[in-house]
Amino acid sequence: MSAFLMAVVFRGLDGAELDALVEVMLRSGAVLDLSHLPGPVADKHSTGGVGDKVSLALAPLAAEAGLFVPMMAGRGLGHTGGTLDKFESIPGVRTDLSLRHFRALVETEGMAIAGQTEDIAPLDRRLYALRSVTGTVASIPLIVSSILSKKLAEGISSLVLDVKVGRGAFLPTLDQARALAQALVDVGRSRGLKTTAVLTAMDRPLGRTVGNALEVREALDCLRGEGPEDLRTVVLHLTAQMMVAAGQATRISDAEAKLADLLDGGRPLERLQRVVLQQGGDPSVLDRPDRLPRAPVERPVVSPLQGVVVGVDPLRVARTVFALGGGRKTLEDPIAPEVGVSHLASSGDRIAAGDRIAVVHARTPEDAAWAAERLLEAIQIGSQAVPTSLPLILDVR
Amino acid sequence: MSAFLMAVVFRGLDGAELDALVEVMLRSGAVLDLSHLPGPVADKHSTGGVGDKVSLALAPLAAEAGLFVPMMAGRGLGHTGGTLDKFESIPGVRTDLSLRHFRALVETEGMAIAGQTEDIAPLDRRLYALRSVTGTVASIPLIVSSILSKKLAEGISSLVLDVKVGRGAFLPTLDQARALAQALVDVGRSRGLKTTAVLTAMDRPLGRTVGNALEVREALDCLRGEGPEDLRTVVLHLTAQMMVAAGQATRISDAEAKLADLLDGGRPLERLQRVVLQQGGDPSVLDRPDRLPRAPVERPVVSPLQGVVVGVDPLRVARTVFALGGGRKTLEDPIAPEVGVSHLASSGDRIAAGDRIAVVHARTPEDAAWAAERLLEAIQIGSQAVPTSLPLILDVR
Repeated sequence: MSAFLMAVVFRGLDGAELDALVEVMLRSGAVLDLSHLPGPVADKHSTGGVGDKVSLALAPLAAEAGLFVPMMAGRGLGHTGGTLDKFESIPGVRTDLSLRHFRALVETEGMAIAGQTEDIAPLDRRLYALRSVTGTVASIPLIVSSILSKKLAEGISSLVLDVKVGRGAFLPTLDQARALAQALVDVGRSRGLKTTAVLTAMDRPLGRTVGNALEVREALDCLRGEGPEDLRTVVLHLTAQMMVAAGQATRISDAEAKLADLLDGGRPLERLQRVVLQQGGDPSVLDRPDRLPRAPVERPVVSPLQGVVVGVDPLRVARTVFALGGGRKTLEDPIAPEVGVSHLASSGDRIAAGDRIAVVHARTPEDAAWAAERLLEAIQIGSQAVPTSLPLILDVR
Repeated sequence: MSAFLMAVVFRGLDGAELDALVEVMLRSGAVLDLSHLPGPVADKHSTGGVGDKVSLALAPLAAEAGLFVPMMAGRGLGHTGGTLDKFESIPGVRTDLSLRHFRALVETEGMAIAGQTEDIAPLDRRLYALRSVTGTVASIPLIVSSILSKKLAEGISSLVLDVKVGRGAFLPTLDQARALAQALVDVGRSRGLKTTAVLTAMDRPLGRTVGNALEVREALDCLRGEGPEDLRTVVLHLTAQMMVAAGQATRISDAEAKLADLLDGGRPLERLQRVVLQQGGDPSVLDRPDRLPRAPVERPVVSPLQGVVVGVDPLRVARTVFALGGGRKTLEDPIAPEVGVSHLASSGDRIAAGDRIAVVHARTPEDAAWAAERLLEAIQIGSQAVPTSLPLILDVR
């Protein structure tokens, strides 16, 4: 299989080969049947980015809007974080649900966020383990088959894919991202799944925080109608695409407006609170985010220069958080939920010398000092604003 | 390692990478020191062909001419036979010699033919096992590193490589064979090994027999100054190249003439007889080849047509012998030494309808009948001779 994976990296797969691979991966395990649910069954999947806490706000928002969201999410690996790790930084939350518990939660609350159980596409787990040690992660057909075999097993009828573009994405260039998006859409649709791919910017982190508990905090802000604008925009847009794909809305802008009202009304947060309780977590944390795990050392990063932020390198930020203990090299490694970066400056911010451009959350003062140095390299400050960053929503397929 | 091998198939290795691979494979085991021997230490290696019994005649001939030949040979795998399997079809012969026994034989008789011991390039054995199951055999850098790591471990100072060209070779085209020959010569010479590569024709079988015991018989004919002309030509030429490479002769034609005399004098056969005895075999067989294992069924293949033989497909012949039981899929499979094909017609032979164009040696009449049909497909008969076959000796590097 390792040799096969490497051959696919260099030779690709044609349509029939890719379809055969998706089929055998999907059929290697159980396929959920959620057709009894009284509404559209839908999901969103991101190809992975830095600071991407979208799912934690999107799932309860979509459920509030009438969709059923059986979200089987992943763990962080390498420089990208994982929704499961973020969700589990809420004390008590478990994501290793049985299929029965998972189905029951989707039935009663319209959503659940759980790990892929042993039953779901077991071949994908085995292949992914091989890919991560054989340098064969960044292959479009392998990414497509991995994502779609899992998502098709969820029993969904529509899927919105958030395909990240830029330095913080697995496939950084726009051409690669477009090719991945097209392949996902082609294979998904050929299997009867209503599939939409949205290309979103990952040339900088999403939001102002990177790190598990810090990102939960920001997602909770979003669920209160607050938080950074870019996160809110992506959450509303992707959820709107889910509504349209599921036939619950016809125009994206109408759906976005309706969803913004829902978000500001606070009911999605209450829904997530019930789901947290059902998944073993402490629901009070959602009203009191200061009860999330907190790093003992918080150290501001101060700009030595005056100027304008012209770029924040998502890879450097991610690697810094990784080194602080917030990431893992192998699925067995433990992670520190409390570490990370908050208050990240973003492109266009005007800065005076001595201004805070980020806050490091670390386990030791030494870690914090080291990370602060790294962040000064990650945050580019120029004498004047340059419009080099990508539009947040680049394209829809 | 499987993923690495497949990556090498598609991306190749540059000079430094290939040298590093050869080094690590060589140093994975013992390296013989035969510098105490009172003459040049030399070997010949073939990239593998059909009917290639050259080593069995060449080794005693070269030893008779004053070279020391520590020949570590291989087993047949897939469609090509192996010198070890052929040698072992002489009753009693063992090729699993200890390094001590092997060295002693080279010292006293100037030659030995043995399997690569566990001590020699163990990494090569592991990689070869992976290559055979991952479809990564036909890669120039992998072939080069496999051959040279083993040959460098033999403690030789010069090496002649018989690079086969044509449908019966692992790399059939002339371009591939030239590239392989050049890579072997470049890497060998960069390591201080006097390396010569001779490209020889493998668009038809070598000699008139294919199958282990039958090939031994033909090699013994050659050692008696008899046997087919093509085999004698290749044996004399390659041994002459060994003499020149080792500094024992300056002109190939002079060396060939001297070696032809030696061959016709019968002493190389006597030498092989002593070696057979030392390796546990019955030396009387060399004078009485009818004591070699013999198949119970011998069935002539008769031409239905009149005409001229215009080609003998080595792959079809090899696959037929393989199916008769003369080959193996994995190194653990047993092989039948007695089966095969003899009296193979060759290009240019004029045939009348009803003439014998081959003899099948099989374990059952059913096998023989089936093989006879296959050989009719393998031996192409036309109305007139066409000079399409390759020159026997194509090129020397």
